Formats: sequence, C-alpha cells, structure tokens
Amino acid sequence: MSKLTKPPAFKPFTLALVQLGGVGANKADNLKHAREMILKAADNSKKPDLIVLPECFNSPYGHVHFPVYAEKIGYVPGTPYDVSKSESDSVKMLSSVAKEIGTWLVGGSIPEREADTLYNTCTVYNPQGELVALHRKVHLFDIDIPGKITFQESETLTGGNTINFFDTDFARVGLGICYDIRFPEQAMILARQGCHVLIYPGAFNMTTGPLHWELLQRGRAVDNQVFFSMCSPARDLTAGYHAWGHSMIVDPMGKVLGEAQDGEEIIVSEIEPQTFVDARAGIPVTRQRRFDVYTDVREVK
Amino acid sequence: MSKLTKPPAFKPFTLALVQLGGVGANKADNLKHAREMILKAADNSKKPDLIVLPECFNSPYGHVHFPVYAEKIGYVPGTPYDVSKSESDSVKMLSSVAKEIGTWLVGGSIPEREADTLYNTCTVYNPQGELVALHRKVHLFDIDIPGKITFQESETLTGGNTINFFDTDFARVGLGICYDIRFPEQAMILARQGCHVLIYPGAFNMTTGPLHWELLQRGRAVDNQVFFSMCSPARDLTAGYHAWGHSMIVDPMGKVLGEAQDGEEIIVSEIEPQTFVDARAGIPVTRQRRFDVYTDVREVK
Repeated sequence: MSKLTKPPAFKPFTLALVQLGGVGANKADNLKHAREMILKAADNSKKPDLIVLPECFNSPYGHVHFPVYAEKIGYVPGTPYDVSKSESDSVKMLSSVAKEIGTWLVGGSIPEREADTLYNTCTVYNPQGELVALHRKVHLFDIDIPGKITFQESETLTGGNTINFFDTDFARVGLGICYDIRFPEQAMILARQGCHVLIYPGAFNMTTGPLHWELLQRGRAVDNQVFFSMCSPARDLTAGYHAWGHSMIVDPMGKVLGEAQDGEEIIVSEIEPQTFVDARAGIPVTRQRRFDVYTDVREVK
Repeated sequence: MSKLTKPPAFKPFTLALVQLGGVGANKADNLKHAREMILKAADNSKKPDLIVLPECFNSPYGHVHFPVYAEKIGYVPGTPYDVSKSESDSVKMLSSVAKEIGTWLVGGSIPEREADTLYNTCTVYNPQGELVALHRKVHLFDIDIPGKITFQESETLTGGNTINFFDTDFARVGLGICYDIRFPEQAMILARQGCHVLIYPGAFNMTTGPLHWELLQRGRAVDNQVFFSMCSPARDLTAGYHAWGHSMIVDPMGKVLGEAQDGEEIIVSEIEPQTFVDARAGIPVTRQRRFDVYTDVREVK
C-alpha cells in the first residue's frame, strides 16, 4: 500500500503510450525492442513526461510462459532500491532508459518471482532511473467464455494484495494491471487517495476488447473523475494470445483523447488538469457521496 | 433498507418502459395521460410483466415545482399500506391501474412530502395493486456546468437514506432514481444483495445525456453483471427542462437491448436470465473480488 501523503499539485503534462509490437520468445530481443521504442517515444517534438509500456512486455502472454520469463525484483516499498544489484534484466533496462531520457516510465508488467510465488508486476521509474513504485496485479485473469476465450492466470500466478500509486512532480498516478479494471473498488480507492491519473497496462483480447475495453476505461474515468489510460501490446496474430490493441487515454468527462489502432504505435496526449477541475466542479460527485448511507471503500483494510 | 432474504429465482420476463410525453402543469391531466400510456403498454401482443414510468411523471421537473406537486404518501416499509386511505392521487392511480392490468408497476417518481420534508420518490406496485416498495432518491441532482446546465434539486428536496429493492415472482429488482446512477456504490450494493435487474427512472438532459446516459448504464450493467434500465420522460422543448429521452435497457454484458428515441414511445425487451448466468460464468468477477484487500460496500451502514 502506498503511503498516504498530500498529493502533489496537478500540472499539465505529456503522456505517451507505447503499444509495443513483436514481443516474441527471446527475452533479450524483447527488452532491446522495448528500449528502442521507449527511445522513439522520447524523441518527440515535445518530450513526454511519462511513458507507459504494455502488460507483459518481456514475455509471451500465457500462464506456461510466466515461470520461464519471471525475474526476481526484490523491491521493498519505502526502501531505496539498488538497481545495480538487481537480478532483473528488465528492471535494469527500464531504469537505464528512464535515466537516459530523463523521463518517468511505467514499465508495463513482467512476470515476477518472489521466493516460490509468481506475480504479474508493474514497476515504475523516475527520471533519475530509480525504481520508485511497484504494483502486483491484484485480480488474476481467469475467464472462460465458451467458444471464445479461456485463460487462467492463476494456473501459475498469485494476485498481489496492495493498492499502489506514485507521486511525480506533475500528478499522483494510480496503478492497476488489465483485469484489475473490472473491479471498481481499485479505481475508487486510488482516486479517493488523491490520484489524478490512473494507468493500467493491459492486454484485452479479441473477445473482451470489442465488448468492454473502451467502456470500462470511460466508465472508470467518469465515475471517479480522473484521467484513465490503458496501454496494450500490439496485436500479433502469430502469437498464442491475440491482444486487442487500441491503447487509450480518456479524460475525466469520459472523452477519448487518444486511441491507437491494433499495430505497433505510439500515442501521445496532453493531460490538462483544467479538465479534471472542471469535471469535478460541474458534476460534483466527489463532494456528494452519501457515506452516511454506505461505506467509503477508501477506508481500506 | 429492504429486508435481506433469499432472492427469488430469476425467470424470463417482459419489461416495458413508458417514455412519457406531455407532462404539463395540470397534475390531473398528467395522471390521466400516464394511466392511458400504462394501459397502452399493457395492451401488447405479449403483456409486459413489469412496466416502468419515468422520473417526475406527475409534475414539471424543477425545484420550484416540487413543493407545489408534492403528495403525502405515508408508506412504512414492511407494513401493509391501505391505498384506499392514501392522500396521494398519484399512488391511487398507479395502484388502480396496476391492479386493472395485473402487472408489476414501477411508478417512476413523484415529489413526496413527509412532514416538512420533500423527496423525489419512486413507488412500486404488485399486480394486485398493492404498494410494496418505495425509494427516495439518495443523491440529489445539484450540478453546475457553466454555459450548459445548472440545476439544484437540493433547493427544495432532501435525499433519502436507504437502498431499496423489491422481489417479484421473476426477479429481484433494485431501485435508484436518475443521479443515483453516478454513485457506483448504490448499484454495487443492490447487485450484491441479489438484484438481477436495476431500474432507475431518470431524466438526463441535453448536456449530460449525450455525454453519459448510455455510458453509465452500460458501465453499471457490466461492473455488476446485472440488467440495467433507465426510463426517461420524452423530450419537450416547451418545458423548462429538456429531457434527453433515450430510455434504455442494457444486458449484463453491456449490450443495449432496447433504446427509445426522444419522443413519446414505449419500448419493450425480453429479459433472459441465461444472459445473466452466462455473463457471470464467463467473466466471473462476482467470485473474484478481493475483499481481503478492500472493503465490501455491501456491508452497509
């Protein structure tokens, strides 16, 4: 659980999503390509302040792959992390490139091994390359839509048990991973803890993508009056899992600010705090909740 | 608060929404026309099992009108209600027509006076014409979008303080009114209390309608895996408040089963429990929530 302090002031910033393509069997190649695409995202006329990678960017997506690609990270929240001693090649690459370009980086997710347990884990880096936050996917993707898609992350993964955000000099940013979006509580808690923007690296598929990818993001944005963004891998029909793509950035009124297609693509949006302020002033649900009638989920366990 | 018992079995039924037009200054005329439209909805090749009226169907919508049109109902939950002794003309009409056609009736909403306090109140009748449930809008519609719409229900109304549902022989049906939809907790509590269908009479407007009317309904339906429906008044550009219309019925996967346009119209949908069962089996969020990580809002105050 992130420590609850006063959120930073919300300032305009530039958000870039890297809808990464070509994730294959070779992890070194995956890391090399991710690094190249991060550099490409940074090489913009206006350098992004925050760059986001998709879920599972160093490994094919599938429960049989997670144990093979998992890395030990060993991050302890609130404790300085020495990247130079990290056993994770992915963490080393992400830290190095964040420092090189001097930009905040949400490192999508990778399979993480902690003792005998595997997680689907997102790490976050500041412009100095320091690992400053980590989120383990809380809600595992176990679904079974007959004739469409069956997937059981829980075959090899364990769900995390904390809600996480990080503070930059321009916003408080809440974290989730993919299926976490289907559980309203996580976004409600993050928003009520002062997050201005919620970012969930994710990989919906060809069944759930057309059904719910946009709906869930716009819904979370409007219910909580925050910016909401999911960053997907590009679709690869030669892979075992066909990601929906369509990486997206939604504003607090539910307007889609940017949306990728299904191939490899970088999308960039300007995040304007005024939209956030206007949404909350115009439709002031954040001040109208009836916590005399029902419990505030922010009062977390 | 409705008493928590085992929900009835969910069986197929026919739902009709009356997108009522022509609500004017004369209450007797409003009641007469509402009655005619309910009879028209019942006069279908397949008689609906449940008919729904819109928010504020006996009165123009506006805080100055509420005190003028308010009626004393005097319903005490869990206690038999003698309609013949009711001081409410609206309750008498609704009870009478429900009994006449032998159909469940969600009587939209009317301004209710209880001592010196006014509420925006929905009443429900069984096919015997008995008043069996009542919901007072919990979240008052106080919004101020500069240059677009300013509305302050709280100028004259008070919010209710209970969450309410009713049981039929085909489903447990949860209740809300209009702005209640913007507060996820109410629908979450109702769904977790066993409701299969949530019905919110409502009157969005020409600003919030295009922005959020469909999004919120589809969002509540998918998050909670229930059928969700809002019944609006028809749009009347001669009235002080221009309702959005577009009365809607959404299934638990977020599919819009029926949608009205903006004029007076009756829409009818078959509610199929199998969709509800399949949604919950395929994407089993109702069994995957992490109440070890966050509080269950069902544990209400």
